[in-house]
Amino acid sequence: MSLDGFVAGPRQSVKDPLGIGGERLHQWAISLAAWRGSHGLPGGEVNESTRVLEESLVNIGATVMGRNMFGGHPGPWDAAKPWNGWWGANPPFHHLVFVLTHHAREPLTLEGGTKFTFVTDGFEAALAQARRAAGGKDVSLAGGARAAQQYLAAGLVDEMEIHLVPALLGSGERLFDRVGEDLRGLELVRTVAAPKVTHLKFVRR
Amino acid sequence: MSLDGFVAGPRQSVKDPLGIGGERLHQWAISLAAWRGSHGLPGGEVNESTRVLEESLVNIGATVMGRNMFGGHPGPWDAAKPWNGWWGANPPFHHLVFVLTHHAREPLTLEGGTKFTFVTDGFEAALAQARRAAGGKDVSLAGGARAAQQYLAAGLVDEMEIHLVPALLGSGERLFDRVGEDLRGLELVRTVAAPKVTHLKFVRR
Repeated sequence: MSLDGFVAGPRQSVKDPLGIGGERLHQWAISLAAWRGSHGLPGGEVNESTRVLEESLVNIGATVMGRNMFGGHPGPWDAAKPWNGWWGANPPFHHLVFVLTHHAREPLTLEGGTKFTFVTDGFEAALAQARRAAGGKDVSLAGGARAAQQYLAAGLVDEMEIHLVPALLGSGERLFDRVGEDLRGLELVRTVAAPKVTHLKFVRR
Repeated sequence: MSLDGFVAGPRQSVKDPLGIGGERLHQWAISLAAWRGSHGLPGGEVNESTRVLEESLVNIGATVMGRNMFGGHPGPWDAAKPWNGWWGANPPFHHLVFVLTHHAREPLTLEGGTKFTFVTDGFEAALAQARRAAGGKDVSLAGGARAAQQYLAAGLVDEMEIHLVPALLGSGERLFDRVGEDLRGLELVRTVAAPKVTHLKFVRR
């Protein structure tokens, strides 16, 4: 998240999936060996952020994300030109991913154990399905902003790690729009200061 | 500042000078012995925030603040019922304070060395006057949000300490509205994690 509260820049598109300037929020992660390894890339840094990123990747049994994060064109799926996500043939999830959408679609199985299931009956139903699929492990809420807002406003988030980047975006998608003034029991339990980001971990009491 | 970017709550008034809920942003400071002492009050805590607050109080030669922070009724000054600020007969500044306003007013001298000077020719002129008055010491930008936005947008801030409180306000005055996407050279140089607040210090490179 930027210092002014944005988790994506304005005008998200296939060309700019994170919105204009949104990639500035992810540079701390992309430079890490831990991130690069999980995306099949060599090299990278090890610093204070490493344990935070590693922690976020362990014990995940299923993922939920919004349609906008899954990406591609808005509206009904185009069977003639199928959009299979941003992550190529072998996405970095390796488990069931539940995509919130208003448009039904058959499940999409890709390499490496990632299977996208498209859920049309709401964010609570998607979480229930993800919990069952996770088999006792954690469910990761990957984003984007609107999906996160729905779960936060409903008090369904047990843990939240804000990666606060000391930069401004000025416009875009805010994480906490439509959430109101209540963190629903989420309390700050850990702050990790890294060179280019501050990690703020919240746990629901 | 709240996690969602507000430095004051909505509907600021004489009754609610920090806006509805805005006092939640200041509890970390008010509980400190260092704050209480500077306001003539006994007792209080000593923790990781103490050195940050103490640092903010030393070497200040003059202060600039917006009319809204000085407070009272909006619009022209009411000579029949003069508003002399929130801080009583002996304000905690003890130096010259320059108040940005559209309405001329004679300087106001209170106890303990605090003198409020009302500046009607703009925020840059107020800063120039404060710099001269500070005699080589620092000029403190006390707030509120709109005054801070003006100085940030103009690239006139040399140091900024964000006291990030892990709570939401949901509405109110945002620190970074109208500032755009550029911190004008301000870079994060220090993060201090305290129990109820994270202090983020920025210095212009």
